Amino acid sequence: MRILFLGDVVGRAGRELVEARLPKLRARLRIDLAIVNAENASHGFGLAPAMADSLFAAGTDVITLGNHAWDRKELIGHISQAPRIVRPINFPPGTPGAGSVMITLTDGRRAMVINAMGRLFMDALDDPFRAVAELLSRHRLGVTVGAIVVDFHAEATSEKMAFGHHFDGRVSLVVGTHTHTPTSDHRILAGGTAFQSDAGMCGDYDSVIGMAKEPAVARFVRKMPTERLGPAEGEATLCGLFVETDDRTGHATRVAPVRTGGRLSETWPDAA
Amino acid sequence: MRILFLGDVVGRAGRELVEARLPKLRARLRIDLAIVNAENASHGFGLAPAMADSLFAAGTDVITLGNHAWDRKELIGHISQAPRIVRPINFPPGTPGAGSVMITLTDGRRAMVINAMGRLFMDALDDPFRAVAELLSRHRLGVTVGAIVVDFHAEATSEKMAFGHHFDGRVSLVVGTHTHTPTSDHRILAGGTAFQSDAGMCGDYDSVIGMAKEPAVARFVRKMPTERLGPAEGEATLCGLFVETDDRTGHATRVAPVRTGGRLSETWPDAA
Amino acid sequence: MRILFLGDVVGRAGRELVEARLPKLRARLRIDLAIVNAENASHGFGLAPAMADSLFAAGTDVITLGNHAWDRKELIGHISQAPRIVRPINFPPGTPGAGSVMITLTDGRRAMVINAMGRLFMDALDDPFRAVAELLSRHRLGVTVGAIVVDFHAEATSEKMAFGHHFDGRVSLVVGTHTHTPTSDHRILAGGTAFQSDAGMCGDYDSVIGMAKEPAVARFVRKMPTERLGPAEGEATLCGLFVETDDRTGHATRVAPVRTGGRLSETWPDAA
Amino acid sequence: MRILFLGDVVGRAGRELVEARLPKLRARLRIDLAIVNAENASHGFGLAPAMADSLFAAGTDVITLGNHAWDRKELIGHISQAPRIVRPINFPPGTPGAGSVMITLTDGRRAMVINAMGRLFMDALDDPFRAVAELLSRHRLGVTVGAIVVDFHAEATSEKMAFGHHFDGRVSLVVGTHTHTPTSDHRILAGGTAFQSDAGMCGDYDSVIGMAKEPAVARFVRKMPTERLGPAEGEATLCGLFVETDDRTGHATRVAPVRTGGRLSETWPDAA
Ligand SMILES: [Fe+2]
Ligand SMILES: [Fe+2]
Ligand SMILES: [Fe+2]
Ligand SMILES: [Fe+2]
Ligand SMILES: [Fe+2]
Ligand SMILES: [Fe+2]
Ligand SMILES: [Fe+2]
Ligand SMILES: [Fe+2]
Repeated sequence: MRILFLGDVVGRAGRELVEARLPKLRARLRIDLAIVNAENASHGFGLAPAMADSLFAAGTDVITLGNHAWDRKELIGHISQAPRIVRPINFPPGTPGAGSVMITLTDGRRAMVINAMGRLFMDALDDPFRAVAELLSRHRLGVTVGAIVVDFHAEATSEKMAFGHHFDGRVSLVVGTHTHTPTSDHRILAGGTAFQSDAGMCGDYDSVIGMAKEPAVARFVRKMPTERLGPAEGEATLCGLFVETDDRTGHATRVAPVRTGGRLSETWPDAA
Repeated sequence: MRILFLGDVVGRAGRELVEARLPKLRARLRIDLAIVNAENASHGFGLAPAMADSLFAAGTDVITLGNHAWDRKELIGHISQAPRIVRPINFPPGTPGAGSVMITLTDGRRAMVINAMGRLFMDALDDPFRAVAELLSRHRLGVTVGAIVVDFHAEATSEKMAFGHHFDGRVSLVVGTHTHTPTSDHRILAGGTAFQSDAGMCGDYDSVIGMAKEPAVARFVRKMPTERLGPAEGEATLCGLFVETDDRTGHATRVAPVRTGGRLSETWPDAA
Repeated sequence: MRILFLGDVVGRAGRELVEARLPKLRARLRIDLAIVNAENASHGFGLAPAMADSLFAAGTDVITLGNHAWDRKELIGHISQAPRIVRPINFPPGTPGAGSVMITLTDGRRAMVINAMGRLFMDALDDPFRAVAELLSRHRLGVTVGAIVVDFHAEATSEKMAFGHHFDGRVSLVVGTHTHTPTSDHRILAGGTAFQSDAGMCGDYDSVIGMAKEPAVARFVRKMPTERLGPAEGEATLCGLFVETDDRTGHATRVAPVRTGGRLSETWPDAA
Repeated sequence: MRILFLGDVVGRAGRELVEARLPKLRARLRIDLAIVNAENASHGFGLAPAMADSLFAAGTDVITLGNHAWDRKELIGHISQAPRIVRPINFPPGTPGAGSVMITLTDGRRAMVINAMGRLFMDALDDPFRAVAELLSRHRLGVTVGAIVVDFHAEATSEKMAFGHHFDGRVSLVVGTHTHTPTSDHRILAGGTAFQSDAGMCGDYDSVIGMAKEPAVARFVRKMPTERLGPAEGEATLCGLFVETDDRTGHATRVAPVRTGGRLSETWPDAA
C-alpha cells in the first residue's frame, strides 16, 4: 500500500497549499491512502468542519488531530458524524469521536489510522502506549488489516522513539506530529515499522512554528500577553512522508520524506 | 568561512565515530572551524576531561555543552583551564567556565562560538535571548568577528525558531541541539543567518535518543525506576551541519546537513 | 471512627518523632485507625522495609506512599507481602503492591485506605479520578465499609480541591500529601467528606521541605548539581489530621489538625 | 511596625469581603501597613484599575500581583501611574510598573514591599533570588528602611522555603501567594524573618481555588475545553497574616494567621 502522511496544516497558507497540491501528489506518487493532520487548520487553532470538508474534497482520506482538537468548538458536535476525522485515542472515555478509523480502499484492502497523544511536556491524558496496545490486541497487521498508521502527536523525541520501538512490527508506520518541524530520521525500524519523529508542518516556515514571527518572538522576550498570535501568511511548505508497505505483512518497504514549496529544501521519494 | 557543527555525541559509539571520521570530514569539506556538542559523551551523561582531549585531538576546535554539562563532576574544575569547552552562557553568574569563546584561525580570521540553553520544558535559567544579545552588543558580525555560531540547546521548536529569528542577521548560524533528532528545516533566514532546529545526535539511532531501547521504553510503560539507562552500543550515525559564510558580512551563503553511518539516510553537501 | 493521619515522614528526625509520639497520640485521641505517609522515611528518599516495620510497631495501621515509593528498591519486592503498605492506585497495571487496603478494626468495623497520585506538575500516571471512582464503584461508604480515607499525593492545590469535591460524600476524608507543608484549610465539604489540602510533613521545618537548608537553597541559586541533599536533623514537628466519622454514614463529623513539636505552632483537636 | 498581609483576592466575593472588613481589621489589629495581593480580583483574572481604587479606598496601602498581573490589559497602561501597585520584580527589563515600592507611614517610618515570582512549575522569568538580592543590596533592614515585606508568588513549597531561608534576616517577612490555600507553617526563621508558605486566598473556599466547582472539576476529569471557569460566588473567607516587627532591627517579633468568614476555621492573633 502506498501511503502519504502530511503534518500539521497551519492556517490559510497551509490549507491552500495542501488543497492545491494533494490531487497531483496522489497521482504522482500513486497514493492509496492520504492522511493529513489538521489540528491547526483554522487560523492556527483547531479545525472548523467546513475546512475538514475542503481537505476531504481535495483527496484526504483521514484527518488526524492533537492537543488543538477542540479549539474550534463546532468540531465537538461534528466529529461523531465524521468518522474519518480521528482524535487522540487516549482522551478519557466519553470523549466525542474516536481514536482510530478503519478505511477500506476501493480495491478492498483495509487500513487503520490511529491518532494518539504523548504526555511528556503535554497534558496528562491516558497512557498512549496502553491505549494503542489495547486497540492492536484486536487487530493483526497483515492478517486482519493491511496497514496500520499511527500519528503520535507528541513533544519529546524520547517518547516518540520509545513509542516507535514499542510498536515496532505491529504497525506499518509511527509518524510524529506537533513540533511543526520535519525531522530527517525517517527509517524502517528493526521489526519493520517505518518511523519519523515528526512529519513537520504544512505552513509558512518564515515564522515561529507557523505563527507570525514578531508577536511570537516578543512573547519569549517580553513575557507580556499583549501580542496576538496569528498564522504567518507567506508561502507555505508542504511537509510529509511517503511510505510503501508490503500488503502481505503490513511492514514498510520504503519510507521517504516529501517536501515541496516555500523555504525548505525540496525532497521527493526516488522514483520506484 | 567553512564551518562544521556536530550534534550531541552520545557514549562510546558516538565518540568513536566522531573521532574516526572528523579528520577526513575536515579535509573533504575543507573545514575551517569544527564544533562538537559533547554533553552526552561520557556514557550518555556529561563529558570527562579525557574525552574532551580526544575530541580535540581528532580535530574539534570548540566543544559545546548543555543541561548535562556537569554530569561528570570533574569537568567543573577542568573547564576554567579549557576555554575551548563552552558551557551555556545563561547559567547564573559565578558558574565555572564561559558561555562563549573567540577562536582565531591559522589564517587570522576570527570566529565566536556561543552556547545557550532554552527554558521551555527545561530548567529555569537566565534569559538566553538577553544573555546572547548582551554578548553580541560587544561584537559586530562582519566587523569585529568573521563568523558567530550559536548552539542553542533547547527542547521546544517554538523557542528555537523564535531564537533564530531574534538573532537573524546578527550571527552566522543558530543550530539547535538537545533533542538528539536531526531536523530537515535547514535554511538561511531572511536576515542571513543559517538555521536548523536540531543538528541531531552522533550516536546509535536504534535506541531512544541514544540510550538502549528496552529500559528506556520500559520507563514510559512501567513507570518504575528499576531500569538502568545506558547508551546504545550499535553502529552510530554522525549528524551535523555544514555552513559556509561570506567573510565580509559573516552571513551564511550555504547550509547543508551532513549525515553518515548507521541507520539514517546518508546526506552530504553538494560539491561546491 | 476516630482516625489519625500523619503526613510525609522525612528522615530520622521524622521517624523518631512519630515512633516516640504515636502510642501516646493513639491513647490521648482514642484513635481507631492510624495512617502514616512514609515515602520519605529513608533519609528523605523512599521507605526501607525495616523502617516500615518500626512504624507498624509504633502503632501505625496503614502506610501510604507517593512519587518516592520505589526510591528504596527493596520495597519493590517487599510490598506484595505487606498489604498494609499502600502505593498509589494509579500506577500502571502490573505494578507491585496495591493502591488500597481494607482494614478490619478489633471491634469488627471496616475501613478502607486509598493512596492516589495527582498529575499536575507530576509524572503522567493513570487518571487518579477514574482509578478511585472505579474502586469506589465496588464499595459503598456507610454500607459495605465504615470509613474511607484517601491520601491524595499531589502538588497542585487546584487538583487537590477538584479531587476533594469530586469524591465529596463518597469517602470520609481526602487529605493531601507531598508538599511537606501543612495547610489550614481543613473543613467538611458540602457532601460530608473531610478535606485538607496537605497534612504537612513529620520532619524538621528548619529546612527546605525537610532537607538541609544550605544545599537545597544553593540548588535554586547556583543551578549546579554539586550539592548533596540530605534530611535536616533538627527537632521535628509532627503534622497530621484528626477526623471523626459517623459510623452509620461514614461521613466526617469533625476534622482538626494535629501539630506538635519543633518549630511550628502547637495545635490539638478540642477535647470532645 | 504592625503589618497585615491578605492573600489573593478572588472575584466579587473576595473583593466585597476585603473591602467590608479591612477598615475594622486595621483598627482592631492597629495595623500600620496593609498589603493585599489582588491578581485575581477581576472575575478571577487580573485587576481592573477601578478595583484597585476600591481596594485602596478600603484601606489597602500596597497591592501586589503575580502571574495574572496583565490579564486585565488596562492595568498595563495604568500601573506606571500607580506606584503602590507592585508587579513581580523579576519580569524582564522594560516591563511596565515596578517590582517594589517604598512607603512612608504617617509617623515617618518607612517600609518596602516587594513582589517576586517563583519559577518552579511556572513561567521562566528572571531569577527571583538574584533580583531581590540586587534590590536589597541598596536597602539595609533596620538601617535605611524599617520593614521589608516580600510577597513571593510561587507554586512549589520547596522554592518558597528556599527563598525564605535565603533572605532570612534581610527582610521582615516572606509570605507566599498563588496556591490560594493558607498554610499553617507560619513561624519566625532563625535569622528573624517571619515566614508562611502561603497566605491563602480571600475568596469562596467552596470552590476549586476560588473558581466554581463543577467546571473546574470537569476540566480534570473530561479534558475538554468546553467548561467556562468563573469565580465561585458563595461566602468568602478572608485569609491573611499579621506580623509585628521590631522597629530597630526590622525583624519579626510575632507572626500569626488571620482568618475569618466563610468555610474555614476562624483564627486571630492573640491579644497583645
Ligand atoms: Fe499539537
Ligand atoms: Fe500542531
Ligand atoms: Fe541536552
Ligand atoms: Fe544531549
Ligand atoms: Fe512526594
Ligand atoms: Fe513527600
Ligand atoms: Fe497566581
Ligand atoms: Fe492567585
